[in-house]
Amino acid sequence: MTEDAAGHVRHIDLLLTARWIVPVEPDRSVLEGHAVAVEAGTIVDVLPRDKADAKYAPRERVDLPEHVLIPGLVNAHTHNPMILLRGLADDLPLMTWLQQHIWPVEAKVIGPDFVRDGVELAIAEMLRGGTTCCNENYFFPDAQAAAYRAHGFRARIGLPLVEFPSAWAQTRDEYFDRALAVQDDLRGDPLIGAAFAPHAPYTVADASFERIRTLSDQLDLPVHLHLMETAKEVDDCRREHGLRPMQRLQRLGLVNDRLIAVHMTQVSDAEIPVCAEAGVAVVHCAESNLKLASGFCPAEKLRRGGVTLALGTDGCASNNDLDMFGELRSAALLAKAVANDAAAFDDAFALRAATLNGARALGMEDRVGSIEAGKRADLVAVRMDEVETQPLYNVLSQLAYAVSRRQVSDVWIDGRRKLETGQLVDFDLAGVLEKTRRWRERIAAL
Amino acid sequence: MTEDAAGHVRHIDLLLTARWIVPVEPDRSVLEGHAVAVEAGTIVDVLPRDKADAKYAPRERVDLPEHVLIPGLVNAHTHNPMILLRGLADDLPLMTWLQQHIWPVEAKVIGPDFVRDGVELAIAEMLRGGTTCCNENYFFPDAQAAAYRAHGFRARIGLPLVEFPSAWAQTRDEYFDRALAVQDDLRGDPLIGAAFAPHAPYTVADASFERIRTLSDQLDLPVHLHLMETAKEVDDCRREHGLRPMQRLQRLGLVNDRLIAVHMTQVSDAEIPVCAEAGVAVVHCAESNLKLASGFCPAEKLRRGGVTLALGTDGCASNNDLDMFGELRSAALLAKAVANDAAAFDDAFALRAATLNGARALGMEDRVGSIEAGKRADLVAVRMDEVETQPLYNVLSQLAYAVSRRQVSDVWIDGRRKLETGQLVDFDLAGVLEKTRRWRERIAAL
Repeated sequence: MTEDAAGHVRHIDLLLTARWIVPVEPDRSVLEGHAVAVEAGTIVDVLPRDKADAKYAPRERVDLPEHVLIPGLVNAHTHNPMILLRGLADDLPLMTWLQQHIWPVEAKVIGPDFVRDGVELAIAEMLRGGTTCCNENYFFPDAQAAAYRAHGFRARIGLPLVEFPSAWAQTRDEYFDRALAVQDDLRGDPLIGAAFAPHAPYTVADASFERIRTLSDQLDLPVHLHLMETAKEVDDCRREHGLRPMQRLQRLGLVNDRLIAVHMTQVSDAEIPVCAEAGVAVVHCAESNLKLASGFCPAEKLRRGGVTLALGTDGCASNNDLDMFGELRSAALLAKAVANDAAAFDDAFALRAATLNGARALGMEDRVGSIEAGKRADLVAVRMDEVETQPLYNVLSQLAYAVSRRQVSDVWIDGRRKLETGQLVDFDLAGVLEKTRRWRERIAAL
Repeated sequence: MTEDAAGHVRHIDLLLTARWIVPVEPDRSVLEGHAVAVEAGTIVDVLPRDKADAKYAPRERVDLPEHVLIPGLVNAHTHNPMILLRGLADDLPLMTWLQQHIWPVEAKVIGPDFVRDGVELAIAEMLRGGTTCCNENYFFPDAQAAAYRAHGFRARIGLPLVEFPSAWAQTRDEYFDRALAVQDDLRGDPLIGAAFAPHAPYTVADASFERIRTLSDQLDLPVHLHLMETAKEVDDCRREHGLRPMQRLQRLGLVNDRLIAVHMTQVSDAEIPVCAEAGVAVVHCAESNLKLASGFCPAEKLRRGGVTLALGTDGCASNNDLDMFGELRSAALLAKAVANDAAAFDDAFALRAATLNGARALGMEDRVGSIEAGKRADLVAVRMDEVETQPLYNVLSQLAYAVSRRQVSDVWIDGRRKLETGQLVDFDLAGVLEKTRRWRERIAAL
């Protein structure tokens, strides 16, 4: 193409052509021979390649002849600094794992440095695996935000709250004060937003939940909460409050379209329409639920019930990876068995759960989660010509059931290239790995 | 090292040094700074590196400074030619999938060429993922055997039997005649052995099972059988025979240490000690069972009950990969949830199930499945210095829960290098992919 076509050619930053594009919206769409036009970080057009060549003069053009282009994956529940504890302790009951292994180590190392270094390693792993956005939940949200911002990575940062002192805050008031300071700092950030992150119903008091409800209304912030992860949690809540956790949250006014309810293995049939009507988003962490023997989330029932179902890896110390391709595959496989229906949670839905539904859960649906004009350009290219995805009859099936995250070749966030033919861009990987080794030595010596 | 150390130095073919060696036997052993000495395809020594340098003069030496060396993975249940149908149909109930999609296509393409080309693509995928041995179950075992033999890949080849005509054989007698001809051809082969492979109790008559029992006794061949994959199978058997499938097989004398029982989602608590005492090996196909919504195999109960538990991917048209690292991880995660015990099916056991127990199931325990002097050198090197396996506290945990098959760098079968720093050795990959593309075009046009 040339730029002299009588002034009808529009200059843009970037034109991506790909053998296939799976925009996620509309459902099950697979575009062949199409292109995505990007200007100033925004997708301005999705159109056939020949039309793109006639219409646009891109400053950069990237051809992806054996690739499928998909929206960036959204990891809707993470504790990313804990990546520095990956594999430190496994195969243990939850309380033994926490009390005898994770908490004693965290108590000795937690702080802004630990959080920053963990987030940086996590960003490297996420980018290499096609994840462009995460829903973070850990202490020192200021240090997290700084690290995500420095790397141009999209994130929703949880503002933590528990009813006991931590290195982050000592009292309830201090948790709120620090939370609001971080939220204030993030206001207007193009990539990073905040969410309240009360840990769980069993570690947060009514008085704190009430303050969170008021503030989340005023500030229009999501509430990111572990909810009904195990049967024990439900039993304990019934004993203490005479209510199931969902009922308690309803009474507190928190069951609304700002609630991001993580795990929900114990959600009852009666609670599913309640979630759907209120607009609650559920984050299903299939692999974490399996590994910690937490229970089986009725993912297909939630989907059929009209609940927004997103996916998360949970923390890397319990998963033990940040592999969203692995997670969407595990979620799809598990959902079929739990629903006793091989047709449940199909390939297209698995991809939707890991992209658009994640964006919706995080309140970012207007910006990301699908490849549509007007959305920000969070894009991932996956090579499909490798042995493991041949022969190729059905792109959606290969993405859901056969692709490995290592087939991710290129990643853009907000229109900026973050991974180029498998290599991180503007990222000091050797430095991050060296810092990781130092943490490893320090922690192993504890 | 030099060769002139007063004649005490022994010439060998190959010395491998690795940062870590996980020999699988003894249990949980992780050797650091050790070496494996190989002569004529046999492991002759496993010893500290400095002692190896003093003792051996290798013709070839391979240093693996950031790797863990493990026994080759054993995929204990496959239908590898079906790789050519990968992703052709998904998210369907089993009978719809089989009757409306798989069988009509198979009827039009099955034959020695389809089988050979499928096996070759599968070998490429298996080698790239660290699998060195498989337990094959499909038609045209002669074509399979020829392909595995040509590539120096270790396999147990199932001699198929069903009570209906197929492209392979028309009558029961023809199935047996052809099976015995293939078995005769394989006698004495160093890499390839045979097994009887009656499809399943619901497709094989008592008369055939009786002949198989007699022949498997005479020839000392395993019997590779789909067993109790679904609840429906058990119900139907009860209705038809008044017995559970296991009871029927007991009556037929097939519940013995030659039986390789695949799936077993419906095994009862009472049947577990029966399997353990008889020496039955169970092959657990976690991902296939999930994807087809077949049921939940009580893997931890089988393990605790002393049953030899091996792992298999099942066919690539239903899984949809041949990823044994993925499979051992899925099996470990799922077993914890099914057992309601996060400590169940631990990291070391997951690796054992995918190696030594696979070898034991296939009757190859004397030859492969662990890194021990006297065994054949089926060895796999996995790079551990990648982002996704950092930090590294625990090699076994990383192998079970964090490693991707794409970190496999080098593979040896019977002492011969099959994969070298990620590249297939003596393998016409371009040719195999071209044949795959041709099958894809032909099948997609059906």
